[in-house]
Amino acid sequence: MIMLTAIPTVRFARGRMRIIDQTLLPSRYEIAELGDLDSVCDAIARLRVRGAPAIGVAGAYGLLVAIEEQWGRALPVFDSAIGDDGAPRTATVTPPAGIGYAELKSTLDRAAEKIVATRPTAVNLAWAVNRMRPCWQGPRDVGAVCHALLAEADAILREDLDMGRAMTTHGAALLGRDDRVLTHCNTGGLCSGGIGTALGVVFAAASQGKHIQVFADETRPLLQGARLTAWECRERGIPVTVLVDGASASLLASGDVSCVMVGADRIARNGDTANKVGTLGLAISARQFGVPFYVVAPSSTIDASLRDGSAIPVEHRAHHEVTHVAGVAHAPADVGAYNPAFDVTPASFISAIVTERGVQRPPYDLGGGA
Amino acid sequence: MIMLTAIPTVRFARGRMRIIDQTLLPSRYEIAELGDLDSVCDAIARLRVRGAPAIGVAGAYGLLVAIEEQWGRALPVFDSAIGDDGAPRTATVTPPAGIGYAELKSTLDRAAEKIVATRPTAVNLAWAVNRMRPCWQGPRDVGAVCHALLAEADAILREDLDMGRAMTTHGAALLGRDDRVLTHCNTGGLCSGGIGTALGVVFAAASQGKHIQVFADETRPLLQGARLTAWECRERGIPVTVLVDGASASLLASGDVSCVMVGADRIARNGDTANKVGTLGLAISARQFGVPFYVVAPSSTIDASLRDGSAIPVEHRAHHEVTHVAGVAHAPADVGAYNPAFDVTPASFISAIVTERGVQRPPYDLGGGA
Repeated sequence: MIMLTAIPTVRFARGRMRIIDQTLLPSRYEIAELGDLDSVCDAIARLRVRGAPAIGVAGAYGLLVAIEEQWGRALPVFDSAIGDDGAPRTATVTPPAGIGYAELKSTLDRAAEKIVATRPTAVNLAWAVNRMRPCWQGPRDVGAVCHALLAEADAILREDLDMGRAMTTHGAALLGRDDRVLTHCNTGGLCSGGIGTALGVVFAAASQGKHIQVFADETRPLLQGARLTAWECRERGIPVTVLVDGASASLLASGDVSCVMVGADRIARNGDTANKVGTLGLAISARQFGVPFYVVAPSSTIDASLRDGSAIPVEHRAHHEVTHVAGVAHAPADVGAYNPAFDVTPASFISAIVTERGVQRPPYDLGGGA
Repeated sequence: MIMLTAIPTVRFARGRMRIIDQTLLPSRYEIAELGDLDSVCDAIARLRVRGAPAIGVAGAYGLLVAIEEQWGRALPVFDSAIGDDGAPRTATVTPPAGIGYAELKSTLDRAAEKIVATRPTAVNLAWAVNRMRPCWQGPRDVGAVCHALLAEADAILREDLDMGRAMTTHGAALLGRDDRVLTHCNTGGLCSGGIGTALGVVFAAASQGKHIQVFADETRPLLQGARLTAWECRERGIPVTVLVDGASASLLASGDVSCVMVGADRIARNGDTANKVGTLGLAISARQFGVPFYVVAPSSTIDASLRDGSAIPVEHRAHHEVTHVAGVAHAPADVGAYNPAFDVTPASFISAIVTERGVQRPPYDLGGGA
């Protein structure tokens, strides 16, 4: 039996944010310690930490890092109440001495703006940072602000872990004893606080004794499927088969796939879903061949301000992600590239949306989201 | 104005087959000379020469190489009548002295069997080799067999070049002055004797003064789009933008694509088409967004023995093509891979099939093919 344990994708300890450096996997498992705001923003932008829920948590802890960078060099200001395995531990807050509220506020305002700007599509990042704002916009006392910041950031991680367990339990009920699940990008523990979304559902089903097999789209350009999903499946003892993204239609046509499960970076009220580029084609092919297509995401992914997906901003990333692999060019020099990081799948292609609240079927009305 | 010139993808000169080594492009343009049958079969299997029409030509010349290997070491037996640019030159045949018909036949029978076994999906390979058989199964005179072999192999290349011109001219009539064409894999001069199929249509349209832009799917696992299509477009001065295969659905949804044009490796009588893996998903998405989807291939690609696509054998290739790029692993060691080289697109998704005979629209009845 597989245990549904959390992995330490994003944590905070003794004044530093700690992340599993996802750019090094699967060849190296390494915890990176981030002690200044630039490193945090760079880690989010370069996908050292990635996945909509995980970058929400990283954004919240990033505000703490901004304070540590300024005033925590000698003595760390914060130590989190959540351990690597997700279990409770003793938190400490040592507010910096000799500074005023105005300085603190100014540092936090600037940090919040900078963090939110790192990636535009995932709504969780802005959601988490905005959720932190009352911590320094309410009380005007440095000590109170610091206590509030750590409590709220830890709450975001704790809720992520709790929602991960709830969401994956709801999702696991959709899977049969011997189902074969096709997934895209990485939606396991590495995309979140440590449990995951779509791939977390597979782990939850496995922890119930089901024999689930995973087909992992490699997910070009950054190969999160081949690198991260395959690594997580092997770490947890789940059989996994990797395929190039172009092979998913023929796999779906073959009848060998029970369902498709993917995560989400932003969901509009009507259910239109932005997710890693390649999801749209997968959804269209799944419907063509009668394979159920499920989206699994925490309700913080729902952007209640959007009626539909047409207004979701899509991040376009650097050409070299397409023209190079691992730093080596395979295309001619200076060739142009079309490199959207996400696409938007219309709700009509989505069989169900699973959140920590349960399984929702169309027609979707997700107005009560985040 | 762009000229529709042939490139020397596969040629035969002074006892050796000459190919543009496609595994080295785009970083190096190099002509490889193949003087023995093992090298020819290895070049086809490893895709140093690739593309259904091109491996047909390579299969035909490969039979000549088998003779050279045995008896042409001192003095080459064959010199082809077709130059690098496709223009006529003087052919010579110097039949080997002192050997009997039985020896010659036995060498050719074995070579034919070995060549056909290198790749199972592209029908052109078997078609070309079978077309050569009467050369040694009719006359029983060594000199007559040798003359017939060179004449027939040259005829296959000559017809490929002529069909390339005819097919791409028919196809170019489907393109407007400023069309933007999405294509998959490589279907330019490198896939054929030197003119091409689907991408050749773009070159033909450009040679008529049209301003065509190309979107090239990178085409994992072997990146023929990013490497070869991008290289050919740049060599010929055609604007080209590369994208990962997973991004094609969002590109089609954006309305920026006028039509999709792809080649084919085998076409059944009803129009079902085997082509590079990824084609099926592209066709399904194209129909979803109302974008015309065209197949361009010589009639030798039609397998008149097949009523539909269900019996087309699909080659499955090595796992490392998926788990590695340029020799470097990105997936965990020993992870499983699903790696079909081709998929089969039902005729119902194909707006037209263009051959050297013209443009055919559904319902297809291609019984009069090869």
